[in-house]
Amino acid sequence: MIPRYSRPQMTSIWAPETRFRIWFEIEAHALDAMAELGIVPREAAEKVWEKGAFEVERIDEIEAEVKHDVIAFLTNVAEHVGPEARFLHQGMTSSDVLDTCLAVQLARASDLLIEDLDRLLEVLKRRAEEHKLTPTIGRSHGIHAEPVTFGLKLAFAYAEFDRCRARLVAAREEIATCAISGAVGTFANIDPRVEAYVADKMGLSIEPISTQVIPRDRHAMFFATLGVIASSIERLATEIRHLQRTEVLEAEEYFSPGQKGSSAMPHKRNPVLTENLTGLARMVRGYVTPALENVALWHERDISHSSVERYIGPDATVTLDFALARLTGVIDKLVVYPERMQKNLDRMGGLVHSQRVLLALTQAGASREDSYRLVQRNAMKVWESDGALSLLELLKADPEVSALLTPEQIEERFDLGYHLKHVDTIFARVFG
Amino acid sequence: MIPRYSRPQMTSIWAPETRFRIWFEIEAHALDAMAELGIVPREAAEKVWEKGAFEVERIDEIEAEVKHDVIAFLTNVAEHVGPEARFLHQGMTSSDVLDTCLAVQLARASDLLIEDLDRLLEVLKRRAEEHKLTPTIGRSHGIHAEPVTFGLKLAFAYAEFDRCRARLVAAREEIATCAISGAVGTFANIDPRVEAYVADKMGLSIEPISTQVIPRDRHAMFFATLGVIASSIERLATEIRHLQRTEVLEAEEYFSPGQKGSSAMPHKRNPVLTENLTGLARMVRGYVTPALENVALWHERDISHSSVERYIGPDATVTLDFALARLTGVIDKLVVYPERMQKNLDRMGGLVHSQRVLLALTQAGASREDSYRLVQRNAMKVWESDGALSLLELLKADPEVSALLTPEQIEERFDLGYHLKHVDTIFARVFG
Amino acid sequence: MIPRYSRPQMTSIWAPETRFRIWFEIEAHALDAMAELGIVPREAAEKVWEKGAFEVERIDEIEAEVKHDVIAFLTNVAEHVGPEARFLHQGMTSSDVLDTCLAVQLARASDLLIEDLDRLLEVLKRRAEEHKLTPTIGRSHGIHAEPVTFGLKLAFAYAEFDRCRARLVAAREEIATCAISGAVGTFANIDPRVEAYVADKMGLSIEPISTQVIPRDRHAMFFATLGVIASSIERLATEIRHLQRTEVLEAEEYFSPGQKGSSAMPHKRNPVLTENLTGLARMVRGYVTPALENVALWHERDISHSSVERYIGPDATVTLDFALARLTGVIDKLVVYPERMQKNLDRMGGLVHSQRVLLALTQAGASREDSYRLVQRNAMKVWESDGALSLLELLKADPEVSALLTPEQIEERFDLGYHLKHVDTIFARVFG
Amino acid sequence: MIPRYSRPQMTSIWAPETRFRIWFEIEAHALDAMAELGIVPREAAEKVWEKGAFEVERIDEIEAEVKHDVIAFLTNVAEHVGPEARFLHQGMTSSDVLDTCLAVQLARASDLLIEDLDRLLEVLKRRAEEHKLTPTIGRSHGIHAEPVTFGLKLAFAYAEFDRCRARLVAAREEIATCAISGAVGTFANIDPRVEAYVADKMGLSIEPISTQVIPRDRHAMFFATLGVIASSIERLATEIRHLQRTEVLEAEEYFSPGQKGSSAMPHKRNPVLTENLTGLARMVRGYVTPALENVALWHERDISHSSVERYIGPDATVTLDFALARLTGVIDKLVVYPERMQKNLDRMGGLVHSQRVLLALTQAGASREDSYRLVQRNAMKVWESDGALSLLELLKADPEVSALLTPEQIEERFDLGYHLKHVDTIFARVFG
Repeated sequence: MIPRYSRPQMTSIWAPETRFRIWFEIEAHALDAMAELGIVPREAAEKVWEKGAFEVERIDEIEAEVKHDVIAFLTNVAEHVGPEARFLHQGMTSSDVLDTCLAVQLARASDLLIEDLDRLLEVLKRRAEEHKLTPTIGRSHGIHAEPVTFGLKLAFAYAEFDRCRARLVAAREEIATCAISGAVGTFANIDPRVEAYVADKMGLSIEPISTQVIPRDRHAMFFATLGVIASSIERLATEIRHLQRTEVLEAEEYFSPGQKGSSAMPHKRNPVLTENLTGLARMVRGYVTPALENVALWHERDISHSSVERYIGPDATVTLDFALARLTGVIDKLVVYPERMQKNLDRMGGLVHSQRVLLALTQAGASREDSYRLVQRNAMKVWESDGALSLLELLKADPEVSALLTPEQIEERFDLGYHLKHVDTIFARVFG
Repeated sequence: MIPRYSRPQMTSIWAPETRFRIWFEIEAHALDAMAELGIVPREAAEKVWEKGAFEVERIDEIEAEVKHDVIAFLTNVAEHVGPEARFLHQGMTSSDVLDTCLAVQLARASDLLIEDLDRLLEVLKRRAEEHKLTPTIGRSHGIHAEPVTFGLKLAFAYAEFDRCRARLVAAREEIATCAISGAVGTFANIDPRVEAYVADKMGLSIEPISTQVIPRDRHAMFFATLGVIASSIERLATEIRHLQRTEVLEAEEYFSPGQKGSSAMPHKRNPVLTENLTGLARMVRGYVTPALENVALWHERDISHSSVERYIGPDATVTLDFALARLTGVIDKLVVYPERMQKNLDRMGGLVHSQRVLLALTQAGASREDSYRLVQRNAMKVWESDGALSLLELLKADPEVSALLTPEQIEERFDLGYHLKHVDTIFARVFG
Repeated sequence: MIPRYSRPQMTSIWAPETRFRIWFEIEAHALDAMAELGIVPREAAEKVWEKGAFEVERIDEIEAEVKHDVIAFLTNVAEHVGPEARFLHQGMTSSDVLDTCLAVQLARASDLLIEDLDRLLEVLKRRAEEHKLTPTIGRSHGIHAEPVTFGLKLAFAYAEFDRCRARLVAAREEIATCAISGAVGTFANIDPRVEAYVADKMGLSIEPISTQVIPRDRHAMFFATLGVIASSIERLATEIRHLQRTEVLEAEEYFSPGQKGSSAMPHKRNPVLTENLTGLARMVRGYVTPALENVALWHERDISHSSVERYIGPDATVTLDFALARLTGVIDKLVVYPERMQKNLDRMGGLVHSQRVLLALTQAGASREDSYRLVQRNAMKVWESDGALSLLELLKADPEVSALLTPEQIEERFDLGYHLKHVDTIFARVFG
Repeated sequence: MIPRYSRPQMTSIWAPETRFRIWFEIEAHALDAMAELGIVPREAAEKVWEKGAFEVERIDEIEAEVKHDVIAFLTNVAEHVGPEARFLHQGMTSSDVLDTCLAVQLARASDLLIEDLDRLLEVLKRRAEEHKLTPTIGRSHGIHAEPVTFGLKLAFAYAEFDRCRARLVAAREEIATCAISGAVGTFANIDPRVEAYVADKMGLSIEPISTQVIPRDRHAMFFATLGVIASSIERLATEIRHLQRTEVLEAEEYFSPGQKGSSAMPHKRNPVLTENLTGLARMVRGYVTPALENVALWHERDISHSSVERYIGPDATVTLDFALARLTGVIDKLVVYPERMQKNLDRMGGLVHSQRVLLALTQAGASREDSYRLVQRNAMKVWESDGALSLLELLKADPEVSALLTPEQIEERFDLGYHLKHVDTIFARVFG
């Protein structure tokens, strides 16, 4: 976790305090279940809830000695609870606590990420509606193609992050399971009903079959999903970086009034936030492969996955949370320049409409070859003028063209509306 | 595609013949839709279905000249259809055909992979039932822990691949969309109803919003899912590799009677199939990152994703199909050695039961310290004998122990059944 | 291997014919060495060279039966050589042949790649010299910064690929080793001098210590190096994609006279080659992780690496060879537009020089605050005019400015030469 | 950075205090160079060295306001130095300081890692010499093959890490460069001699050509090299994990006398350190791809690499440092069980020698077919007895065999020394 790329709500999920609190709840709920089953005295369970407490520093102190985190934790809790603490953890194995705790942490992290996506979607929708009919040039290969609207660009992003949300909901379900099944998952020393009880209390489903651990294909799927979401962030960030480049400048990340990119050059406003998002996406993607490599644990478990998860559990969720929030801020305040969009649209002097003129000439009786020649000779002039000349004006002034089409007929072909007639349809599909 | 790691049904999906056939269907259905909308003559559409044909070599020939695959294809089709062919592809862009075709190919590949998983699940279930109560040692960290059954190991794999199946069904849905929306996705020159019609005919859903292309986060999710499945294959393959090692030898890949691992050493039967699966898993995982990097296309599209998909489209699906089939074969014919499992279980001379004896001694009135000392001193002898001595016999012969527990009481603690009492519960959870 | 991304010289290295030929040479040289050591009759060795031959189809035929490629090969060779063939392969293990053959193949592939880099470097140098003083705007964050030259851009790429060349030479050395050390690397049945002899004949160094196999950290380093080179290809490809975008258009991939991007829009020339290179780079990078995962073979060897290498051996080298050649072609024929570069440079109306004017005003006696105010108020006008106004003209017309600086003094600050004075120094560093 | 996987010397390289100290030195040396060139007063440079200081908290405070780390730093330094501080940083750009600082940090990190490798090599050599002739079974595919020595296993690891050391030295050279070349690398406002001076003082070489930044292919190569080293760590860690498994138990990670794996099961000593190393290797490998993706910066630079390096700069070096030290500790104290190695060697009842007996029978006049039959029928008995019977004894008792070979002749073929005769040769190759 890099402090500057972290937000407190997410980091707090990964704080030792939180982890131990979850451990405590798992152990205490398990005790309740055992009490209900008559395995331990009900008073013991009550005492644990009543007196149970822990101190992070004290646990660290004990762990330094016993070299076992769960035992250190239980010892510390026992210092508060007294002799009734001996009923805690009976028939359980450390992984029952650790893996169920990780499930809770990842589920909570997912909840925050889903909220992040909701906020992003809300902002994307608002800005998409705002620019629903703001014309701008569509580009393939970085080359001008045909007109779209800026709202369509944002609607496209909305649909993409809406898919990401659905994926995240599915990924959350993958990892939100509880396993309390003992040393090798056989429930040899613990009743399966304890697992069911704790699962219910912790908001998890039961793990149908565990070994000592919850199977890691679940976590692999979870982190792979985060990698996909990060890649979508990169896509939108890259779009904005492109739009802000000096020669395009159709949109800009918001600069606060006082903020300066450079002391003397007013144009020097850099898309640093979206560049940063590009880098953060690389990191979240980088965590996917270690998560995939974690799946093939040996036999009933080895502990190679543990160190990996100590890194990527926090790093992937904290970074993605920060990135989503940053992207939301960028879109929320994005400075959009419709005039510049229009100017760029017009930059090619109306060449984007040449195809429609070609068709009109054919329909007016010219051969396909003649039509092509007429359009082409005017288009080339526009092209060579770097957009200084206007295709529309040249066509109107071309006697062979005007012999076939009236000025009005030509102008009609330069109608942006032609390209935008289905924007409503598309918006209805995306926003329902 | 490596021929030795390929199966014909999957490779045929990626054959040029298949691809062009799908193109043809997309174009012909689109024409039907346009005829229905009154945009083109119905006879043209009928003629296309009737006379439409193509030859792969001819298309290659034309492409060498015009350097455009879709145009080459259309030209070749026109040679068969005649002038009515001019109505084909109207208002469409090449990507409409290419991306929709890829969707069909990936959907078909998914169907094969789902069938593969079904067969694997069937075999896993059968073998799990067969060995439901075959006791074997559970291992954590590669070290003996407590007893499980071989059926539980297979049931665990079943549950894992059942999750993989659900993920694959979801991934299939992700990529099974049809986009026929024109040069920049605005439907400027094509009616959205054409897209809906073709989608329906090709068994796809419509892409709510496309640019020129179907968004690549869909494909990223698809290939990431294949990477997770590959990792699960690696897990089970690794388990078998472990079980077959000389010192363990609890199971072996099937060797045909004539087959020889080595001319003189009868023990030299190598788990080459599961080793091979480990390598194949690395490849399928290796395709995940390029797919993730494909998401951030520039503006309305660039073509950087195309070369990546020419590799990983076939390579990932063909390799995974082969790997699933190979794994199914391995499990189907796996030679299981229950006696050896028992022997390994007993190898530690009954040490796996020491904990239960400890508890019995405590319950019989010994202090925890004394109980520990009594068990420990016998356990150490067993350990030092490398399993030649039996903990049970030593305990029965230990006067301090026999003062507290009868031989029957001691034997009771060496009961494997204690560990297996919940196997039914777990099987019910997994197999329903 | 995708035919369209393959070149014959590189693919022929991976052809079965080539592989078997290398096997033959390894076996025959080993026999020579044994003859020299008096282990086998010299006539046998001579007979093998004289009569030795093989047919790919026949080997496949035999392999289908015996399921072992090296045995199939030896059987086929024996059909040609006669009884003397029994001396072949004595004391050797299959991996001795397979791994040494792979070393030869990778070394040859490296040689081709080094030649590719040499050609690329040559072209980069030529074009760099050509545009050594062609001014163009330098950009950070995609935003105009200060002037550079187009030659500097190419010199930067030259230096990068020169480093790549050095890395590749080192990587070649890593994998060019010969191991003929028997079943577990102990030379139990083969004299180490045989290994030394074959190594020398095949142009390899000896592997100081092998198990059954040549250690895979060597191959990991090799493929990682290819991944770095691919990333440098992506960098330069991305630069060109940026330069070709409609709004920038400072350079374009060469279009043959007849070639058309689009029927009616003359501007529609897409940077498809460099986009393609971006995708190919993703693939070559994608092969790095499987190669890294191949390192941790079990004990003296397992065979999980083999399937991975069947893919990435050819795929990585063939793809990179193609990519380097394509990039060389792109740079060789790159259409450069110096006028457009100048136009873009001027686009900001001279704002790139504002810092130097600021300094001149200070030196002429104005306070830093006043200087800043004077520059800023004119710069803002230029900025708001989107480059239509000229900063130079505005400054000359500003009475407060002209009170401090003569028109000549102002003009002096707009001197591009100021920025280019160290181009010679840098070129000398890069090209020596 | 995860505290439990970090060592102070390496983390201190990445502490803010260290970073700012390096910044200070770069700036102060640059000032010295400018003074020497007569660009700034010598007294200013002296004053900076004399009075120059900074406080991390104060810099953070200023940065919170100005949102620029280098400016914040310079402001804080100026508070100590006074007006002479205005000469600092003249003609330089922030990246000059940041990238050169990163070079210093990575070079120092490399130095520590090289020391780590030296210590590991020393320990590997010592233990290899110790077990040079300790026989143990060599395994391919996890299946017993032929004898090797435990010393050979360690010598193999030595050679591997010796290669890693050479790679790291090369990687260090890659990133140890200094760039002080101004906003776009043209030295427009700074003399190239300043760069040369600072490079010399900071122990770096000059970057022949930079843009605003040091090219990132250098860093990609650096982190890729760390990924290879991590993979070699995984290989050796995996070997030890295998050797410690219950059924093999030829070696064990050291357990301190008081340490307990499990309360009642003395065999429960888990190879947790090497399992942990396996996970850490996954992480270091995971950082390779983000580093490769960092290469393709846009034009003269974008800042997407920066966030990636904030993570992987510390994470990769700190984790690898910790892993190397942990591995060194594991090897140093590894508990080796030569008797168990012998026992495993004998486990197959001498089957590893069957090939040599076969040869002896042939040489004694039996046909190859008969020889095979004789060996095979005895070998099968051994195999079926799971090593309880001895091949040697069976052969001696087989009348058909004893008709051809004397007991002494048979025994001779069971000589381990035969397999170990070249250990000296191999050790000489590895250790020189």
